[in-house]
Amino acid sequence: MKLIRNIAQMHRWSVLQRKRNLTIGFVPTMGALHEGHLSLIRRARRENDSVAVSIFVNPAQFGPHEDFKKYPRNLFRDASLCRAERVDVLFVPSAASVYPAGYKTYVTVEGFSEVLCGRSRPGHFRGVATVVNKLFNVISPDRAYFGQKDAQQAAIIKKMVRDLNMPVTVKVLATVREPDGLALSSRNAYLNAGERADALVLWQALCLARRMAKRGVRDTAQIIREMKRIISQKSNSRIDYVEVVDASTFLPLREIRRGALAVLAVWIGKTRLIDNMVLRPGGEYAKG
Amino acid sequence: MKLIRNIAQMHRWSVLQRKRNLTIGFVPTMGALHEGHLSLIRRARRENDSVAVSIFVNPAQFGPHEDFKKYPRNLFRDASLCRAERVDVLFVPSAASVYPAGYKTYVTVEGFSEVLCGRSRPGHFRGVATVVNKLFNVISPDRAYFGQKDAQQAAIIKKMVRDLNMPVTVKVLATVREPDGLALSSRNAYLNAGERADALVLWQALCLARRMAKRGVRDTAQIIREMKRIISQKSNSRIDYVEVVDASTFLPLREIRRGALAVLAVWIGKTRLIDNMVLRPGGEYAKG
Repeated sequence: MKLIRNIAQMHRWSVLQRKRNLTIGFVPTMGALHEGHLSLIRRARRENDSVAVSIFVNPAQFGPHEDFKKYPRNLFRDASLCRAERVDVLFVPSAASVYPAGYKTYVTVEGFSEVLCGRSRPGHFRGVATVVNKLFNVISPDRAYFGQKDAQQAAIIKKMVRDLNMPVTVKVLATVREPDGLALSSRNAYLNAGERADALVLWQALCLARRMAKRGVRDTAQIIREMKRIISQKSNSRIDYVEVVDASTFLPLREIRRGALAVLAVWIGKTRLIDNMVLRPGGEYAKG
Repeated sequence: MKLIRNIAQMHRWSVLQRKRNLTIGFVPTMGALHEGHLSLIRRARRENDSVAVSIFVNPAQFGPHEDFKKYPRNLFRDASLCRAERVDVLFVPSAASVYPAGYKTYVTVEGFSEVLCGRSRPGHFRGVATVVNKLFNVISPDRAYFGQKDAQQAAIIKKMVRDLNMPVTVKVLATVREPDGLALSSRNAYLNAGERADALVLWQALCLARRMAKRGVRDTAQIIREMKRIISQKSNSRIDYVEVVDASTFLPLREIRRGALAVLAVWIGKTRLIDNMVLRPGGEYAKG
């Protein structure tokens, strides 16, 4: 496995793959790799001739009071995990090379970016769209892989790619969970034992929503009320948002229909966790 | 020469050129081609194996009260000019395919885009950056060609390409002028005979600025004052802006130095014309 830190060198690698008619699968990450990332890498490995993984804790997607500094970093461990998955290139650019002095260009996906996580984290999705756009330009992958856990991010990337005619196929893979249901996240590392137990309430609220939808409840306000009720029972929890949205537009739904997605963000102590669950499959989203 | 109207088909052509190891030169235009465009096409023809020209009157770069509707369109004439220059592909997408219903993604280059033409035409450069980004993604040219007449546009495109790591070389070619000095522009077609005579004042003001700079005048305020004075002598003229800026950042300069660029936008009757001239070569800009 090659470790590349330089943008121009990364681009040359990608040009060489193209010249050799090799397809490129790409998994952009912020490191602190877990089984969720590895599931993306394995799929990329199966579907492409070459696999590139990037590790870049992107300052542009963190707010001034967020966890950029304390976000877990462990390149040595991440690199051995990638090597074990037969990744061809691990791309680890510096922040100074990604955003050199005088940097000024940003990609925004309007509408999607101002709601839910975008409302709680102003500028977050602009940072995400911009860095993914840049990485796609440097690596020019045939396929890029994202996790459904970050559903809003995945929807924004898909929309950006379609709107800007970027020549890449975006694949969104199912959320990988702990045996008890907690969605894997690098931020789970912030939780102490008590918080880890309380964090399960995100999964429990989503399961409750799905049961209600299956039972035939159509009124999303009723579902959201019940979800909020059980989350609030944990003394360590603070709700950021609980919503039912259309999975392809992220606009709120008043009634359950095809493509309905329950989404939530909850603080457990000082850690903000997100998760989501499809309540009724279908719509454009099913094409994944 | 192929005429392609479909985005997917255009992209397939570009992929095929790459497979054959042929380089692509690209000239994006809004049609109503004149010798300025042709100079770009000829250079593209000399420097690349294949040449693509696009004609797209981009609604996203026109304000609500601007000349989108009356902008000159003559595909038949444009196509024969391109054929005569041995263009390989003329790409003429529809507005509905470039901006389908629900379109939401925009590229902005901050700082550059809010001054001068950007201040007079809010949203203009966002529209320009977005459409050029899209065209680059569809066509993936090795080299793209722009005219120095639209200096601010060219600077913004160069900045976007650098910031977003787009794999294309942007070339900015000298303004082509009428024998008397008027910069070629598709909008010159709007001028009646009297206005055409008055329009020469843009060139005269720029030449005055250059003479003053050569004579050693360093105070840009003094130069701007003199430029405004001679423009105001034409009863049909109305100044939008007259400035001296750094050619690579488009920030105003108080003193003449390397890379100083005089820029102006002037209404002649109902037609807004722009032009510019380097007052002292050098700086990053000279790398062109």
